Amino acid sequence: MFDEIQAAHERLRGVANLTPIHTSRTLDGCLGARIFLKCESFQRVGAFKFRGAYNAISQLDDEQRAAGVLTFSSGNHAQAIALAGKLLGVETTVVMPRDAPRVKRLATEEYGARVVEYDADESRREELAQRLQEEGGQTLIPPYDHPHVIAGQGTVVMELLDQVEELDLILAPVGGGGLIGGSSTAAKHVRPECRVVGIEPELADDATRSFHTGVLHTIHNPPTIADGTRTPSLGKLNFELVRRYVDDMRTVTEGAIIEAVRFLYYRMKLVVEPSGALGVAALLSGAIEPAPRTAVIVSGGNVDSATLAELLAR
Amino acid sequence: MFDEIQAAHERLRGVANLTPIHTSRTLDGCLGARIFLKCESFQRVGAFKFRGAYNAISQLDDEQRAAGVLTFSSGNHAQAIALAGKLLGVETTVVMPRDAPRVKRLATEEYGARVVEYDADESRREELAQRLQEEGGQTLIPPYDHPHVIAGQGTVVMELLDQVEELDLILAPVGGGGLIGGSSTAAKHVRPECRVVGIEPELADDATRSFHTGVLHTIHNPPTIADGTRTPSLGKLNFELVRRYVDDMRTVTEGAIIEAVRFLYYRMKLVVEPSGALGVAALLSGAIEPAPRTAVIVSGGNVDSATLAELLAR
Repeated sequence: MFDEIQAAHERLRGVANLTPIHTSRTLDGCLGARIFLKCESFQRVGAFKFRGAYNAISQLDDEQRAAGVLTFSSGNHAQAIALAGKLLGVETTVVMPRDAPRVKRLATEEYGARVVEYDADESRREELAQRLQEEGGQTLIPPYDHPHVIAGQGTVVMELLDQVEELDLILAPVGGGGLIGGSSTAAKHVRPECRVVGIEPELADDATRSFHTGVLHTIHNPPTIADGTRTPSLGKLNFELVRRYVDDMRTVTEGAIIEAVRFLYYRMKLVVEPSGALGVAALLSGAIEPAPRTAVIVSGGNVDSATLAELLAR
Repeated sequence: MFDEIQAAHERLRGVANLTPIHTSRTLDGCLGARIFLKCESFQRVGAFKFRGAYNAISQLDDEQRAAGVLTFSSGNHAQAIALAGKLLGVETTVVMPRDAPRVKRLATEEYGARVVEYDADESRREELAQRLQEEGGQTLIPPYDHPHVIAGQGTVVMELLDQVEELDLILAPVGGGGLIGGSSTAAKHVRPECRVVGIEPELADDATRSFHTGVLHTIHNPPTIADGTRTPSLGKLNFELVRRYVDDMRTVTEGAIIEAVRFLYYRMKLVVEPSGALGVAALLSGAIEPAPRTAVIVSGGNVDSATLAELLAR
């Protein structure tokens, strides 16, 4: 996997944004440590997902490219596939539940993807995707359980370790495990002494339970505000990487997530979606002790206006 | 004045944040130009005002430092004076109207200033400030009509011209003229071929009228959402600098300001206050034609939750 990450790192150079590191004297002062935020909110499409999507589509052969790409997602992966397909001249189809937020559907279409709706009560998205694939011959690129997707996401940490020296600890949010899988693999190869800890909402703690028990736990549509972590479980390959390379997992409350989003807005002037604020939530709430030099992957900034207004008005 | 700006630039090194430049492929694509945002929203206290306040207080002699500093402001300058005073070990007093937003008063006190309230119906802040000065012997550092304040604000452009090569145009918001005065002076000395254009809300167009007529116009509490520009007029020294170094002035509607704030939030993931979005508003609304390489000073990010929720919910 590390070879794949290195190759992805080269492939994404000049295509993905080299996202900046933000710091805050206030945060460092509160925590008594140096905290470095790797701001993937400033990535193309507003989230790290662009990395994996582009890395996956760019490795298709001519025949596969001609047949197009298919995915299922109502979140950042949908937009990522749409934009990556557009940049690489590959047609993309995204299967989305009929009740997905309209703004996400529009954004995905704006980037050039065809959106196929389904009724979540009547059919499963995997079945629909399979049927579409049989009809159209597209290649399925799922949101996280795919080596090229994981490798792309791992490039976040390749950049981070170039940008910040002598890191002791990296915190990353955990949903399906694409980001943590790639990030932990990269970290342990480039800087083995750096610990990697995954952060989940308490309400969606399947990966934490999986990590501690060694058995893959699942969860059904957890009611967390951190929509990027509402995945049913870690992917299979992702779980293997987590077991091998991740040092620990911690959970945070919904209240801590909201506090972190607000801190990032008001004190650091960063627009961050709830899932992207998990690492900062863990630090501010004391769910994890910071190391002297701690990096936090702020995974994305796509938050709709209703959620935002609600979060900020409290 | 340029000597003062150069001295301020040295003085602020390592004290003020070297704020980043943000760019957007979407913005560049829309406008057919390269647009560089100088993000003073990431400055200490969340606005460029820290530069001028620190530059002014740091030039006081021992006796003046011992007597403390006084200012009147309910905005970013209040917080800037409070923090600069704290860093330099100088006591600060801020005169604020009784009906100033509670959050601003708290922020100013949090940075260590003493806040003195007055009733805007009963007394004028200048008179109150003068009385306090007579009693306590503090030095008054007003928000913009002061050479050391202007010089400090000019360091934004000293940094900008180091960070971005071959700029053709700089856009800056205009309130009392501290930022535009310092910025235009710096630009015309370092890169005379770069045009400098000030942007005001249509509802608070006193500086635009002053610029075009050569006579200082005033305005009373204009009802613009861009609260940083609700100043009654340009300062005297500021007006001289504007007449000498600014190439043009343009105005934008309230609707254009709101659109710009929303664009910066949703597309660029930047928390920007309405006054800070004036330059982007001018570009997006067509109030000014971009030059091939155009910089915009995004002056601050301090926006209270009520304003923000209102802006984003539209």
